[in-house]
Amino acid sequence: MKAFMDKDFLLTTDWAKKLYHEFAEVTPILDYHCHINPRDIYEDKAFDNITQVWLGGDHYKWRQMRANGVDEYYITGPSTPREKFQKWVETLELLIGNPLYHWSHLELQRYFGYHGVLNTDTCEEVWNLCNEQLRNGLTPRKLIQMSNVKLICTTDDPIDSLEWHRLIKADETFDVQVLPAFRPDRAMNQEKVDFLDYLQQLSTVSGVEITSFKTLMEALSNRMDFFAENGCTVSDHAPLYVMYAPCSEEELEAIFAKRLANETLTAEEDRKYKFAFLQGVGKEYNKRNWVFQLHFGAKRDNSKRIFRHVGADGGIDCISNYIPGDELADFLNALDDTDELPKTILYSLNPIDNAMICTVMACFQGTKAVGKIQQGSAWWFNDHKPGITEQLTYLGANGTLGNFVGMLTDSRSFLSYTRHEYFRRVLCDLIGGWVENGEYPADEKALERIIKGICYNNAVRYFEFDL
Amino acid sequence: MKAFMDKDFLLTTDWAKKLYHEFAEVTPILDYHCHINPRDIYEDKAFDNITQVWLGGDHYKWRQMRANGVDEYYITGPSTPREKFQKWVETLELLIGNPLYHWSHLELQRYFGYHGVLNTDTCEEVWNLCNEQLRNGLTPRKLIQMSNVKLICTTDDPIDSLEWHRLIKADETFDVQVLPAFRPDRAMNQEKVDFLDYLQQLSTVSGVEITSFKTLMEALSNRMDFFAENGCTVSDHAPLYVMYAPCSEEELEAIFAKRLANETLTAEEDRKYKFAFLQGVGKEYNKRNWVFQLHFGAKRDNSKRIFRHVGADGGIDCISNYIPGDELADFLNALDDTDELPKTILYSLNPIDNAMICTVMACFQGTKAVGKIQQGSAWWFNDHKPGITEQLTYLGANGTLGNFVGMLTDSRSFLSYTRHEYFRRVLCDLIGGWVENGEYPADEKALERIIKGICYNNAVRYFEFDL
Amino acid sequence: MKAFMDKDFLLTTDWAKKLYHEFAEVTPILDYHCHINPRDIYEDKAFDNITQVWLGGDHYKWRQMRANGVDEYYITGPSTPREKFQKWVETLELLIGNPLYHWSHLELQRYFGYHGVLNTDTCEEVWNLCNEQLRNGLTPRKLIQMSNVKLICTTDDPIDSLEWHRLIKADETFDVQVLPAFRPDRAMNQEKVDFLDYLQQLSTVSGVEITSFKTLMEALSNRMDFFAENGCTVSDHAPLYVMYAPCSEEELEAIFAKRLANETLTAEEDRKYKFAFLQGVGKEYNKRNWVFQLHFGAKRDNSKRIFRHVGADGGIDCISNYIPGDELADFLNALDDTDELPKTILYSLNPIDNAMICTVMACFQGTKAVGKIQQGSAWWFNDHKPGITEQLTYLGANGTLGNFVGMLTDSRSFLSYTRHEYFRRVLCDLIGGWVENGEYPADEKALERIIKGICYNNAVRYFEFDL
Repeated sequence: MKAFMDKDFLLTTDWAKKLYHEFAEVTPILDYHCHINPRDIYEDKAFDNITQVWLGGDHYKWRQMRANGVDEYYITGPSTPREKFQKWVETLELLIGNPLYHWSHLELQRYFGYHGVLNTDTCEEVWNLCNEQLRNGLTPRKLIQMSNVKLICTTDDPIDSLEWHRLIKADETFDVQVLPAFRPDRAMNQEKVDFLDYLQQLSTVSGVEITSFKTLMEALSNRMDFFAENGCTVSDHAPLYVMYAPCSEEELEAIFAKRLANETLTAEEDRKYKFAFLQGVGKEYNKRNWVFQLHFGAKRDNSKRIFRHVGADGGIDCISNYIPGDELADFLNALDDTDELPKTILYSLNPIDNAMICTVMACFQGTKAVGKIQQGSAWWFNDHKPGITEQLTYLGANGTLGNFVGMLTDSRSFLSYTRHEYFRRVLCDLIGGWVENGEYPADEKALERIIKGICYNNAVRYFEFDL
Repeated sequence: MKAFMDKDFLLTTDWAKKLYHEFAEVTPILDYHCHINPRDIYEDKAFDNITQVWLGGDHYKWRQMRANGVDEYYITGPSTPREKFQKWVETLELLIGNPLYHWSHLELQRYFGYHGVLNTDTCEEVWNLCNEQLRNGLTPRKLIQMSNVKLICTTDDPIDSLEWHRLIKADETFDVQVLPAFRPDRAMNQEKVDFLDYLQQLSTVSGVEITSFKTLMEALSNRMDFFAENGCTVSDHAPLYVMYAPCSEEELEAIFAKRLANETLTAEEDRKYKFAFLQGVGKEYNKRNWVFQLHFGAKRDNSKRIFRHVGADGGIDCISNYIPGDELADFLNALDDTDELPKTILYSLNPIDNAMICTVMACFQGTKAVGKIQQGSAWWFNDHKPGITEQLTYLGANGTLGNFVGMLTDSRSFLSYTRHEYFRRVLCDLIGGWVENGEYPADEKALERIIKGICYNNAVRYFEFDL
Repeated sequence: MKAFMDKDFLLTTDWAKKLYHEFAEVTPILDYHCHINPRDIYEDKAFDNITQVWLGGDHYKWRQMRANGVDEYYITGPSTPREKFQKWVETLELLIGNPLYHWSHLELQRYFGYHGVLNTDTCEEVWNLCNEQLRNGLTPRKLIQMSNVKLICTTDDPIDSLEWHRLIKADETFDVQVLPAFRPDRAMNQEKVDFLDYLQQLSTVSGVEITSFKTLMEALSNRMDFFAENGCTVSDHAPLYVMYAPCSEEELEAIFAKRLANETLTAEEDRKYKFAFLQGVGKEYNKRNWVFQLHFGAKRDNSKRIFRHVGADGGIDCISNYIPGDELADFLNALDDTDELPKTILYSLNPIDNAMICTVMACFQGTKAVGKIQQGSAWWFNDHKPGITEQLTYLGANGTLGNFVGMLTDSRSFLSYTRHEYFRRVLCDLIGGWVENGEYPADEKALERIIKGICYNNAVRYFEFDL
């Protein structure tokens, strides 16, 4: 029997331990997709307390507290930080089998040096311990550096000034690269009430007056250039699903003109617009050799009741099961047909798509990069031991696992780098198990290449970061 | 190597054994969903033979016999009970990896004290052994009491008189609670040929003449009150899928009037009616603090050839893969938006929905109960070791497993309480494995709370039974 | 720790080893579905080199090379065989967790006696070793005989003359049966540009002028008789999905007449035609007691760019997730309703359909055969340890695993019989694990029957081959 979350946590064989401790643990982190605010890194302010870090914006935890019958008053309401922490700890005890249980304890171990069990008995002790350390130097930059992070990509709107990225870059006291990622979802989501306002802002910032679909693309292209000047090599998109709905340029412009006239588009017009949009930016990414990240399968803001209180990213999103794989394949072909498909990472939020996605992506590989089309790491609702194991298993079975670009935090928290550790432990346990079982040779050189590749080197090569 | 189905069946670690034998095995059973006829409990007649118990209405076994090429004559036809038993035993030998293999042997062990292997060699011995015991006191009540069952919910039509429930309650010689569950599917399934006849019966029984959708809801509300007087706190529904198809009250009444005029509704009218129906009863359940059970994903009566011989529940149902999760989320929101969503348990028959459902339900939790929205236990075609393990794993990964209300038999047989044992063994093996692997602390107090909670206590609290 | 791919490869318990070595390993192979060209068997020409065997037509390998960034020049282009082999070996090192890693090494072990690891260090050695043996007698027939194959079914178009099958049969120096399988996809795929040409060829070969749907069925029936004379007992179909779209005979003939007039059918007309086609041939198969193989869920030729270079079967196919299970059930009922449903094997390329398919097929079993309706083995993108394990697990949980007809290669290569070995190892490990864990009795007789049945005997009985 293993001790609770000791140094060999999740590592069940000798080879798993060897792979993790010799190759994975010592490898830096490249977090190519997160939702951290770069301003927080630049300003590097100390936190007031652990509730601010853990519960300030963590909708993963909010969901579980609600599932435990906790009133919103103690979740996002005006209760005290200590009360919120108490309610969270009471919930945590019941989260057996949940990654939040493991993440919370990994964070306590790695950042606060606490190796006990957090429960209602230890709640006060942990509260005091964490707060003391947070007030004494455990700032955002410190947390990043403790985590051996070499590079972070944030997620940024095309209209963003990127001022904080530039300030961080200019700051010689901090040597971790913090780069923007280009996320133009607001320009795609034409159904939003502020869409026309947004286009106006985009016109202003880009200096291109948006009067047509063509000029929209020009404005975005202009901003891509600006992002590229600031080190960006990666985009991010979150459509409900990836659609294939081609139409003529004339029809497309008519649809766009209709929307500019503040009319409501039909469902099919919406599909045509979004298909053209994703195809259009895809071609631009290809020109710049950027990576096209496509996240899909998230149905958002489901409880209107909670949304009215908490707003977006409030812990009320879910997995969709309307993810037409055939349209995904046809979309990729629409770019591939003219050899304009950029490096692309496909992330479905629905784990049942693992096999489908691995086989779709294999149809569109090419010489632009090793592992040109990737399946993204198990993310959000799948970022847990069984989810990661399944994703790696299917990718191994139908893809080229050795070329996988690996993990990202997708997080809003500076403590989430332990998710890389968690991922690496699962990875090493899986691969170590194969070696122990005679399914792959006990070839240290080949295994070092594979483990370090998935943990770090493949992503450096794939995104072409300057590291 | 472990002996065949011994006391540590399915328990592969020390912690699994400890959790099962110390916490799970000693905990009573609360069977909140089954299809037992309460009259059989009241009358408590002895069975003639094991074929009557095992093969009289068990469509699980019928399917397997058909898959083994057995003629309907020996399944539901006029062959002798001994012949049927023989054909079943011949089939059983081939059911490696099937829960029927385990259930059959658990039933032989627990109720008949037979610990051997049932096969063609032992068939005659087992036949005689079982029949002797069945004729000598192994009646329905005896089986229930042997199983440490504290409470049973049957499944009852709104027009039911509940006379057998009342007789059981009045019988002081039997202290197990037998409560009705409210299942108004016949009032929802407007496409059935006897729908209008049924409405007439419902009008008569409720004293509310059904001339509109509004009066239909009044009639059902009247019957809910009657059921509540008889101890009911739970409903059950089995739509093909949960739909979101709102329309105005006027349109709804026009649709209902059309159906009352014996016209055929269009597919979209059918969706609107059923959405309004489920929303309407949901609001009523919320008023009464009842639990709303939604079972979906079963496509029934597929082989018309067998249906003509055997009728409904004949072993010719299958899993559907048309289960739009987006509509499920929107349906729940339609009730949640006005804070009228009752405690709800979601059961999909398709195991690929596990992840989706766990994330949908997490959007609609609230303070009405701990674990207000639940994913139902792996049921029917998923009630086996891998199916239960997957459901528990996904619920652990995305929900609050510690609050899970656990197992139900969903059975027509008095021997099926061993399914609770089977479930508990799988549960303890999973959780015990986590403890052994250092994924949860070896904290007996916390684990006792979780195990006993999932086995019994959570359901008592959730349904608010008087136990 | 186990040695790399030794004699107990994939066998992790004593019972797994016993079942494999005593029962599975010694049992012959019946390969009832492959894509080998019978001419190659008849002519039995020596191969030039290992690249010809391994990379000549193996789109599984092509995909992985493309995923490794290899240029088409080294995959299907005019590079030398040695260059291609080099690129493949460089890719292979990264294929951890992929069945190609195991298949490649099993093939090297079984056919070439090479028990080392193939990597860039050993590449030249293996190249020389393999080529020497290929030029010295390792011909197609030799490979088949080395593999203990008793019978092979190829895949053949209705217009095929079957001359090579007849020549093989007449050749007394070769005692392995090579039988045709009837695959009339070209007669179903009315959307293809050469459809009318094909009908003309079919008219000529059958002697039935195709002027209507009725005469099309007559022509096919004529060819079925011809195939039957040549030993055929099995058909194969690969629709995108199995549809249910009945229409009247008049409407059907009008649709067919429209297509004969070289007009384009609507999507719904296409569905009606294909439904009628599959129903029509199904009834004919039933008359002949043939097996109806339905392979679905493959979306083909996705990258038009690669298709232009490489053509069909170029490694650019993927799993579809549009596989309506409800229509599948209704299709089967359309044949079953009149008791005209033949023995049928259902194969979905999407592994998420496992549970659905097992429950659909259980609705339509019957006395025509033991295990009349079968789920096909995990194939193509699912032919790997986790995929096979899942298929067997679900089939065990919801079907009658003991009646399963087992594995097929579905291959174009004479080295692929090791896939049967691979399958058998996974099967024995799964079942052996159940025995070790006390989930099935350690009953050698029963287990021998089950293992040998799944490996060979069940298929002999099911297809009614003369062996």
